[in-house]
Amino acid sequence: MKPLILITNDDGYQSRGLQHLANVAAEFGDIVVMAPERNASGVSTSLTTGRPLRVRPVKEMGEGWYMCDGMPADCVKVGLEYFCPRPPDLILSGINYGSNASINVVYSGTIGAVLEACLDGFPAIGFSILSHSPETDFNVCTPTVRHILGQVLQNPLPGGSGLNVNIPRLEASQIKGIRVCRQAKAAWIDSLEKRIDPIGRPYWWMTGKFVCDNPPADTDQYALSQGYVSVVPVRPDFTDFNAIEKIQYLEL
Amino acid sequence: MKPLILITNDDGYQSRGLQHLANVAAEFGDIVVMAPERNASGVSTSLTTGRPLRVRPVKEMGEGWYMCDGMPADCVKVGLEYFCPRPPDLILSGINYGSNASINVVYSGTIGAVLEACLDGFPAIGFSILSHSPETDFNVCTPTVRHILGQVLQNPLPGGSGLNVNIPRLEASQIKGIRVCRQAKAAWIDSLEKRIDPIGRPYWWMTGKFVCDNPPADTDQYALSQGYVSVVPVRPDFTDFNAIEKIQYLEL
Repeated sequence: MKPLILITNDDGYQSRGLQHLANVAAEFGDIVVMAPERNASGVSTSLTTGRPLRVRPVKEMGEGWYMCDGMPADCVKVGLEYFCPRPPDLILSGINYGSNASINVVYSGTIGAVLEACLDGFPAIGFSILSHSPETDFNVCTPTVRHILGQVLQNPLPGGSGLNVNIPRLEASQIKGIRVCRQAKAAWIDSLEKRIDPIGRPYWWMTGKFVCDNPPADTDQYALSQGYVSVVPVRPDFTDFNAIEKIQYLEL
Repeated sequence: MKPLILITNDDGYQSRGLQHLANVAAEFGDIVVMAPERNASGVSTSLTTGRPLRVRPVKEMGEGWYMCDGMPADCVKVGLEYFCPRPPDLILSGINYGSNASINVVYSGTIGAVLEACLDGFPAIGFSILSHSPETDFNVCTPTVRHILGQVLQNPLPGGSGLNVNIPRLEASQIKGIRVCRQAKAAWIDSLEKRIDPIGRPYWWMTGKFVCDNPPADTDQYALSQGYVSVVPVRPDFTDFNAIEKIQYLEL
């Protein structure tokens, strides 16, 4: 039987990045697409609990395409439990417009779907390209997506892990290769801009400047800065193992 | 100068758990409360990007209390950048109604605020009690909160780490102590219940059963099952360091 690949994203079912990822995935097996009805960027691993979810077919895209009025992690759950004809061999998310490298991973709906898939016991990969442009040429991503899908379908990922793949904004011929990395430390500074509305009351827009100076050579930010695709293995375990010994003073 | 403590939660500004945490924190320093206007459970580290944020004082609670129409992580950002008279010494989140132990941490808005605080460079602690009852007696939490706040204000946490503190649903006299743990592996199964609306169309409610059989002795689920408060150090780095060597085959 052909591999089954479940696909979602956080930019919504109309995203060209999703369509590109689905096209490449279809070279490797059967696909089911369950994507958010609306943009859900920056929603992390949110779940929808206060209202029920609806799912509708995306008829213009053909069989196996659905939209859900929830979050990326909701899409994974409902796709797995109700719309996959058999357990998938792989769950994909993306291709996201914009970087999910470094600390962006914490806010990312794309990676939220990957963490959800890991928790559900399935290998999962999130793909992002470092471009927000509506003219983004997703063909640049094709060799990377093909290589990683082919490898992961043959050599299963370590149990419980997913991959966070970021692709630099370069011509395909300029991409130097693929590097396995760790997540770089960084900061978003000046996150909120205060404005005053016409009635004189304040409001705040999320904005901010990403600061990651001199990232170490084993990090995703460094690899991307050198023209490589970065691959960071991620896991839904937030334990800071290095800190466990250091905080024993808290025990009673 | 007295310590400054910034406080948020995910249950919203009217939560008794938030009020209890603020009361105990006020024993240790000056407080600023910036909590979501509405319940934001299960929103993880979501940020609000598609619309601006509003902040209003919560006059009935006195000076230094505010509500924000965003997510817990938004509350941390706007609280830090615009409402703290000086950089806080500590950021707190909670006390949450319901467990954030084990994999619940991935979905938790309470811990989303903690991860945001860590990214902003501040020590942070999320508190949760294993009870969803509106009659929850938060006095049970007081000795734990006092002990941990006192300790952390004297002995700073390892840089970049936060704490995920879960308190069992027991009488204060029955709580055996505090244990530093790692996050237990677990699963939510049967996550979505399908129903049919009066017009004959399907919809899905998030539900599910938490399964964590025989948690190892060094995990939060085990400590809680034995009557201890669990403390897991958490960090906003999702890298699966153990997997890095194992996926070198992906490099090109």
